[in-house]
Amino acid sequence: MFIDKTVHDFVNLTASNAPTPGGGGVSALVGALGIALGNMVGELTIGKKKYADVEDDIKRLMQEAQELKEEFLRLIDADAEAFAPLAKAYGIPKDDPGRDEIMEEALKTAASVPMDIVHTCGKALRVIEEFAEKGSKIAISDAGCAAALCGAAMQASALNVYINTQSMKDRIFAESMNSELDRLLNEYVNKGDVIYNRIASSLR
Amino acid sequence: MFIDKTVHDFVNLTASNAPTPGGGGVSALVGALGIALGNMVGELTIGKKKYADVEDDIKRLMQEAQELKEEFLRLIDADAEAFAPLAKAYGIPKDDPGRDEIMEEALKTAASVPMDIVHTCGKALRVIEEFAEKGSKIAISDAGCAAALCGAAMQASALNVYINTQSMKDRIFAESMNSELDRLLNEYVNKGDVIYNRIASSLR
Repeated sequence: MFIDKTVHDFVNLTASNAPTPGGGGVSALVGALGIALGNMVGELTIGKKKYADVEDDIKRLMQEAQELKEEFLRLIDADAEAFAPLAKAYGIPKDDPGRDEIMEEALKTAASVPMDIVHTCGKALRVIEEFAEKGSKIAISDAGCAAALCGAAMQASALNVYINTQSMKDRIFAESMNSELDRLLNEYVNKGDVIYNRIASSLR
Repeated sequence: MFIDKTVHDFVNLTASNAPTPGGGGVSALVGALGIALGNMVGELTIGKKKYADVEDDIKRLMQEAQELKEEFLRLIDADAEAFAPLAKAYGIPKDDPGRDEIMEEALKTAASVPMDIVHTCGKALRVIEEFAEKGSKIAISDAGCAAALCGAAMQASALNVYINTQSMKDRIFAESMNSELDRLLNEYVNKGDVIYNRIASSLR
């Protein structure tokens, strides 16, 4: 599994001509790193007298952050699995009568995990927003990093949906996926920017 | 060294209450992942007849991408080393007469690596811009991911400079670092957005 590779090897595999990890798996890892920084804000907040009022909220947020972190880690390898049939489908001769159907199915599979990553980034940004509001001010830069990274992970992952919907013959399915994606990007990329900019202004 | 940890363990260490890896080291890793995706665009371009005209450019860009990737990987552990004296300085009793001087030095050291990460992200975005222009269109989504990730890594790292310059007593040094940072962010975060948006529009 990719998550059992060393950081060094994972980066080098990404840089190589191997099809995975690619943009999808890397986005999931960046999401995991973002929500991990969110959780760190929680770790530096709980047990502090100054933040006793929000202790229960912070514990709930940390529980959510842990679950989202595990989900992102799962999605790193899920993306590689979902991409495999597409890599195989490209190898089918163009005049093979079964090619179109196999390709269409493979495109839908390959788009599904990046879409899950986008959803998970949205959930992560909500949690990070609350960490930024309620967490210890000594970790505020980490909350800002978390927001920037989960926003970018969402944007990066979206491209891995678009590149697959673009080639789909089933335009109704493709356009409904694209619309859902546009809606999520509009809502959450902006949320990430707002959190980041507020924190950057307070530190500058 | 952090880069010898597994991806799984690195993410979990980030989520923990350990001071490092924090926002700085994580930004360096995201930068490494971004430029690694840039290099992957190069890998999928070289040797292809369709891109023979740009073969020499792509080879040069891949050489630059490899160097930037190694630099980012080095900065992951360098950030932890540069942060250690600051973590120690916070432990010095507030009435210790030597505290201020040690703290000032530690703040400058802790700010230096995030600043290097910001510079490296800027260089990476220039290389990614050229990969996006000249590289194989089959890898265009990876070039877009690379741009989004290196832009966010730059923004995230900047917060780790600001949080340190904020506490410096030497305001001339602090303000000169902040101004340099503002200049870099203005130039390169925008460049990242332009690359990303152009690619997202072409795929949507």
